[in-house]
Amino acid sequence: GSGKPTAGGDVQELYVFELNERDRQSPAYLRLSNKAINSLGDLVPFTNKLYTGDLKKRIGVTAGICILIQHVPEKNGDRYEAQYSFYFGDYGHISVQGPYLTYNEDTHLAVTGGSGVFEGVYGTVKLHQIVFPFKIFYKFYLKGIGKLPAELVVEPAKPVVTVEAAPAAKALEPEGVIAGFTK
Amino acid sequence: GSGKPTAGGDVQELYVFELNERDRQSPAYLRLSNKAINSLGDLVPFTNKLYTGDLKKRIGVTAGICILIQHVPEKNGDRYEAQYSFYFGDYGHISVQGPYLTYNEDTHLAVTGGSGVFEGVYGTVKLHQIVFPFKIFYKFYLKGIGKLPAELVVEPAKPVVTVEAAPAAKALEPEGVIAGFTK
Amino acid sequence: GSGKPTAGGDVQELYVFELNERDRQSPAYLRLSNKAINSLGDLVPFTNKLYTGDLKKRIGVTAGICILIQHVPEKNGDRYEAQYSFYFGDYGHISVQGPYLTYNEDTHLAVTGGSGVFEGVYGTVKLHQIVFPFKIFYKFYLKGIGKLPAELVVEPAKPVVTVEAAPAAKALEPEGVIAGFTK
Repeated sequence: GSGKPTAGGDVQELYVFELNERDRQSPAYLRLSNKAINSLGDLVPFTNKLYTGDLKKRIGVTAGICILIQHVPEKNGDRYEAQYSFYFGDYGHISVQGPYLTYNEDTHLAVTGGSGVFEGVYGTVKLHQIVFPFKIFYKFYLKGIGKLPAELVVEPAKPVVTVEAAPAAKALEPEGVIAGFTK
Repeated sequence: GSGKPTAGGDVQELYVFELNERDRQSPAYLRLSNKAINSLGDLVPFTNKLYTGDLKKRIGVTAGICILIQHVPEKNGDRYEAQYSFYFGDYGHISVQGPYLTYNEDTHLAVTGGSGVFEGVYGTVKLHQIVFPFKIFYKFYLKGIGKLPAELVVEPAKPVVTVEAAPAAKALEPEGVIAGFTK
Repeated sequence: GSGKPTAGGDVQELYVFELNERDRQSPAYLRLSNKAINSLGDLVPFTNKLYTGDLKKRIGVTAGICILIQHVPEKNGDRYEAQYSFYFGDYGHISVQGPYLTYNEDTHLAVTGGSGVFEGVYGTVKLHQIVFPFKIFYKFYLKGIGKLPAELVVEPAKPVVTVEAAPAAKALEPEGVIAGFTK
């Protein structure tokens, strides 16, 4: 066998916000179970906007699907299996898979791979929901890659219900976007 | 680049049983092909119960989707592409992707990532179907992680058609579940 | 932790063609959005034939799903999130996830795992569409595995619109298929 390049080997942390600004016709709740309450059989393709942890720059988008696994009445919410990618413009993308619980319990998803500066990446990402289903805060724990681009590594804003992207980021002004941000 | 921690590097084997006890409304066969026989276009979200290899403890659940790829008349079965995760309670999860053949041919799926004690995991898993589609026996070949928790590493039961979980495991008694088992 | 075997660590390149010869009832365009134009909510399970880079041997098939993310009017095309596997007969499979743009812009997908000779694989694959949606040329950049089987490592044909598999490969003659090719 050949091998994974090794140098340092420390975990790099990366914070991003995923915000649904209700302008992408997302999520598409497909009630394929044909049941009145959310049930196995329902599928939810989605795509939201992605911003840097300080909310000052638009990064790109998320893209993927949530598979409804079970309704959890005692929590007044649902368990999903999520399979999606985070798009970071010219820097590439990160793919993830794991649990998403709508009832505000943090979960950890697996980082399954990546491209560009994320080629060879592995690790996990913590999903912290702020406002269902519109505002989510992520903390990535990444290994297997080189030093992250400086404009991605920022001091994160507090994940409070009022978070929103900076005006320059929303307006896609040059100082409000990363290199080749994904539309 | 940074790197994957290395120490030992040996494969760890892990056995689990996935049992459909018909109490989770699974699988949800979505006949989206609108054809009389199983065809490309059909999707099958599913979630079953997961037990230790000796069937003495409930581990958690599986969660994911099977994509019907082709009906194989000469085998009287189907080829699926499977994308799902195995949930191990407080220990985390393992995500996999690969082939599932309903006509009792073993397949090997790729381990694509994991969380918790499975952070950084890679390798494969052998899927051995005992009773379609209710009883499946898995043998994981895992690398990239620390020593597996002792309660997961057990002598496996023989994968025969009569296998079922121990009464304490079915009843979710304290001695019949792993730490923080996934419901 | 344990570790990934290391020896050499160089990237191995692998070229394949994915050809839709219109005999697998693929793709299955599921217009679940119920909208007139392609929209989030549409899902596209697919399976095509896979040939060596010189088009002389049938390798196997692709199998998976494309999730429509957004219609891009100014490009007269669509962005998909793709989750699928490449089946290489007795050699095993490679799973990938990432972007697919129908408007003839190359994309890079993440290699998320593999089985057989591809156990432990990571890296990326460049997707170059020749003829939408029938002919695609891939260049894999693979790490983490041993030396690729000789019959897979060939000088690739030029990815021009007229490419098609050699007659022996189409006819599945012994000299036109790899070891245990996937049907």
